[in-house]
Amino acid sequence: MPRNNELKIGVLGSGSWATAIVKILTTNIHPVYWWIREEDIAESVARTGYNTRYLSTAKIDPKKVKISTDIKKVINKCDYIILVVPAAFIDKSLGNIPKALLKDKKVISAVKGIVPEKMVIVADYLIREFGVDANNIGIISGPSHAEEIAAEKLTYLTSSSQNKELVSVVADMFSCNYVITHTSDDIFGTEYAAVLKNIYAIGAGIYKGLGYGDNFLAAYIANCAKEMKCFINAVHPIDRTLYDSVYLGDLLVTAYSQYSRNRTFGNMIGQGYSVATVQLEMNMIAEGYYATRCIHEINKTLQANIPIVEAVYNILYQGRPQALELRKLCEVLV
Amino acid sequence: MPRNNELKIGVLGSGSWATAIVKILTTNIHPVYWWIREEDIAESVARTGYNTRYLSTAKIDPKKVKISTDIKKVINKCDYIILVVPAAFIDKSLGNIPKALLKDKKVISAVKGIVPEKMVIVADYLIREFGVDANNIGIISGPSHAEEIAAEKLTYLTSSSQNKELVSVVADMFSCNYVITHTSDDIFGTEYAAVLKNIYAIGAGIYKGLGYGDNFLAAYIANCAKEMKCFINAVHPIDRTLYDSVYLGDLLVTAYSQYSRNRTFGNMIGQGYSVATVQLEMNMIAEGYYATRCIHEINKTLQANIPIVEAVYNILYQGRPQALELRKLCEVLV
Repeated sequence: MPRNNELKIGVLGSGSWATAIVKILTTNIHPVYWWIREEDIAESVARTGYNTRYLSTAKIDPKKVKISTDIKKVINKCDYIILVVPAAFIDKSLGNIPKALLKDKKVISAVKGIVPEKMVIVADYLIREFGVDANNIGIISGPSHAEEIAAEKLTYLTSSSQNKELVSVVADMFSCNYVITHTSDDIFGTEYAAVLKNIYAIGAGIYKGLGYGDNFLAAYIANCAKEMKCFINAVHPIDRTLYDSVYLGDLLVTAYSQYSRNRTFGNMIGQGYSVATVQLEMNMIAEGYYATRCIHEINKTLQANIPIVEAVYNILYQGRPQALELRKLCEVLV
Repeated sequence: MPRNNELKIGVLGSGSWATAIVKILTTNIHPVYWWIREEDIAESVARTGYNTRYLSTAKIDPKKVKISTDIKKVINKCDYIILVVPAAFIDKSLGNIPKALLKDKKVISAVKGIVPEKMVIVADYLIREFGVDANNIGIISGPSHAEEIAAEKLTYLTSSSQNKELVSVVADMFSCNYVITHTSDDIFGTEYAAVLKNIYAIGAGIYKGLGYGDNFLAAYIANCAKEMKCFINAVHPIDRTLYDSVYLGDLLVTAYSQYSRNRTFGNMIGQGYSVATVQLEMNMIAEGYYATRCIHEINKTLQANIPIVEAVYNILYQGRPQALELRKLCEVLV
């Protein structure tokens, strides 16, 4: 197994979560190669150590990163690629690079979403579009708001892969004094859980925006956990316990935390703002918005019982009145 | 099945939850008989309709209640007794009444705790001490902060009993335009879930008080759900899904909500206050404090794997340093 400081790791992305991941990785490994698309962010981080646009509280040591705005150069240089681009931009970011470039790399997705152009989770996207071997794919996830990583608050992450060596190399590279990393072989379950929880957080936000209280919200989130189990077991039926932090924990942090973009997005929808206004106002992508449509589409063939996702879909995409749609949903929750 | 307005119902207790329950019941039934121990509260509620000491935001119509400070009189008058006294006061309140008085009553417990003198849940206490038939016992529980009932926020409650008719009569009496009531036959599971969640909320509060963040808290609460499942299945093994609002939902509302006395209690412990100081400061019983010792004792024979309860026990009863104890606990969580 390679030692940490021999690993050639490239991080693709410059949002909050990408910045938090670079902060974690540079405690163990340097240099970390880092693709940042925007010239101004790249320049500012290289000069000051701060990504002032997306996670201004995280301090990165500029001496420990090698930043480039050339994605091909970064991928070429590295053996391990950590993909942290918002799902809606993955195909735009990777679509133009030669297929062969990623083929023999180990690719770890930290994306929590579905590639909307292809309606597939990231693992499937990498396999189908780039011929990446399933054994070279890993997922890093868990309840993890970037803001708390910046503040070095204790966080549990889970490294998932079907490849036992890869899973443990990735767990090692992400472990530090404020990150405890567990391992799992359930890449599909962890990816879908990460996608679904964003939709459920939007629903929680809408309920909050409509004035529902904590009593109801707790019942709602318990129902989300049950629906998550139902969908994941339908899409990839293996023996798993949904009580682990990577599934239920991730749902909880997203649905309850003040930092959650998806919950904030939902809250504004609940208060009556249009989707277009909210997107403009937040200046960020709420992953769950795209995920809602994708899961709705995927479920057309899967036919799992997912009334919560369908209610959020009806509100966001069908223009149904949120108060009526969610009151109706209350009737089927337990 | 009796019609709602023919039911003779007595509520025993005058805390926040008792007051909220009287508010719910009087939307359907009147008069509701109500035992209030303290003369001054009884007088004030009868005159103004407000329990200014414990839930001053709930309006009760004084014309719809018959208040008495004589517990025997209230029990004697009624067929259905709703027990809502803090667990630590149950034996003091009921210990002196003639055993025969409760024997043929239908007794619904809304207590979320263990009778500390006897180390048993309320259903077992009623069976053993008063010879109440198991078929005449019901439990009403679910994620339900009294403050939100006062504000008429939508709340899910669960009526549990082994007696199919009783379960449905109780569900009916608690249903109103802001309460949706579900039914269950799992009285032991719902009682233990309600007890355990208070302990877990204390733990959540301690972690918060120590400065842990939302990422960790989400992983912690997911682990609590798993530990709850493990304990309940050990104490009463039947087929149940812990994702229902009465189990997981109740845990979530207590562990996350600002209204939770148990979480507030834990928060102050985490900040370094002594148990005695916190009890004095809060002027309320944190049920979880007593529950921690009871579950610890019960588990001596049961031997379920409950490291979270044990860590809270070590802090509250063994004087172990909270920071060390909870950091050690982090190592076993997943």
